[in-house]
Amino acid sequence: MRKIESHACFGGTQEVWEHDATSTSCAMRFGIYLPPDAQRRPCPVLYWLSGLTATEQNFITKAGAQRYAAEHGLVLVAPDTSPRGPGVADAEGDDIGLGAGFYVDATQAPWSAHYRMHAYVAEELPALIEAHFPVTNARSIGGHSMGGHGALICALRHPARYHSVSALAPICSASRGWGRKAFHAYLGDDPAAWKAWDACDLLRAATRRFSLRVDQGDADPFLADRLQPDLLRAACAEGGHALDFRMRPGYDHGFYFVASFIGDHIAHHAATLKSV
Amino acid sequence: MRKIESHACFGGTQEVWEHDATSTSCAMRFGIYLPPDAQRRPCPVLYWLSGLTATEQNFITKAGAQRYAAEHGLVLVAPDTSPRGPGVADAEGDDIGLGAGFYVDATQAPWSAHYRMHAYVAEELPALIEAHFPVTNARSIGGHSMGGHGALICALRHPARYHSVSALAPICSASRGWGRKAFHAYLGDDPAAWKAWDACDLLRAATRRFSLRVDQGDADPFLADRLQPDLLRAACAEGGHALDFRMRPGYDHGFYFVASFIGDHIAHHAATLKSV
Repeated sequence: MRKIESHACFGGTQEVWEHDATSTSCAMRFGIYLPPDAQRRPCPVLYWLSGLTATEQNFITKAGAQRYAAEHGLVLVAPDTSPRGPGVADAEGDDIGLGAGFYVDATQAPWSAHYRMHAYVAEELPALIEAHFPVTNARSIGGHSMGGHGALICALRHPARYHSVSALAPICSASRGWGRKAFHAYLGDDPAAWKAWDACDLLRAATRRFSLRVDQGDADPFLADRLQPDLLRAACAEGGHALDFRMRPGYDHGFYFVASFIGDHIAHHAATLKSV
Repeated sequence: MRKIESHACFGGTQEVWEHDATSTSCAMRFGIYLPPDAQRRPCPVLYWLSGLTATEQNFITKAGAQRYAAEHGLVLVAPDTSPRGPGVADAEGDDIGLGAGFYVDATQAPWSAHYRMHAYVAEELPALIEAHFPVTNARSIGGHSMGGHGALICALRHPARYHSVSALAPICSASRGWGRKAFHAYLGDDPAAWKAWDACDLLRAATRRFSLRVDQGDADPFLADRLQPDLLRAACAEGGHALDFRMRPGYDHGFYFVASFIGDHIAHHAATLKSV
């Protein structure tokens, strides 16, 4: 592991690290915020997944999340959104390839060589964090847009691994919305293979009940076609899951929306993690 | 005036506007945050000046200031750091030309044609804001790095115009520190002409007493050579000015430092502006 950046921030430290990941077979970077409490005792961790085109930088520089993590004594881990580097496949468009890993494990060439972001964020990265940083094994997960989809499928696929899950303006059904192109490419043309990576399909098939917290701006230009919260509401109703869904008047899809509500989400996760 | 961006943010609106400025003879952009209170009544304004290489975007996207402005009912105005566009002079280096206006009014060709950022931020911009937005004429000013220098000289040159002034890691004596190259170019080779634009010289020459609030990180790599807070301390002592100077252990020069302390500065300005 190589430390790329380290900055004092709200009494704690915002760091960026790089390591050679086995799951994605490339060097990966992640941001980690260590709150003041982490100097004295291990803290629980909130994993936060970012949206299309982002690197590990976007969330750590624009969301203003460190203030809340400092207040609540949470470690924040913000990974990159795709594999990167020499030999990593890419394609035309913002919604496939670099910056668009969609938090799935690709099965189709050429993507399957590196695009294994699910194994990375749900397995390799938590193991790495828990081996090297002052954290407990209490984990929650959240994300924005494509990262909201990522957070939902991580929690739904690994119910015992995360204590809470939330999303800001998530892609609610990636196989039907913004992820269609990537799912075709990464997972092949058989829609049956997509169900294991689609939050709505996972909610319908779940054998236990989940509690989800979602905020969505009603001025988000991607709302109806690409994010599709109506599908999430229907899947939760059908599967008997608790969905705390808040439509926020006037908010769009960008970081001013994320900054406005990340405090609520961090407080929500902190409350759950403290009761662990 | 042309509205370039508008985003709901912490219950208010973060906007970016562009207008044809007469002082700088070019199109200028500024960010303005209108807090929830501004929907009901005029609010006081905090002008925030940014550092080298920044545009109006850096502060509004990275400082997390909107949350505090919403809490305190302050309008935040964040201008660009230099003139820009066709025909605007530039030169090699980050500390001269585009992104490095240094908040002075240049007297030397070719700079004098557009580099009149002092007239812009201290006169034209407040007049524009007060004509077009729901604001009172109660103003405070602050800034970071080159913008800290800018805030100090604006307040010192116009004592009646601002109710309070603060700076984060300011260039304390631009003619002796980070601004030397720009001062030579913009103001000519006679050091006597620089004194009217150097915070320490202005403090020594002031006929009234000022109160300044300054925070500085002690891990800032530019501390000794380019920022020179010791010169500010000496000038305040010599001139009998009140300097609330806080050295912050471990903090560097970047936006994690700004984000960590902008809330304190906004609270400081709000307290002053509320008593107006």
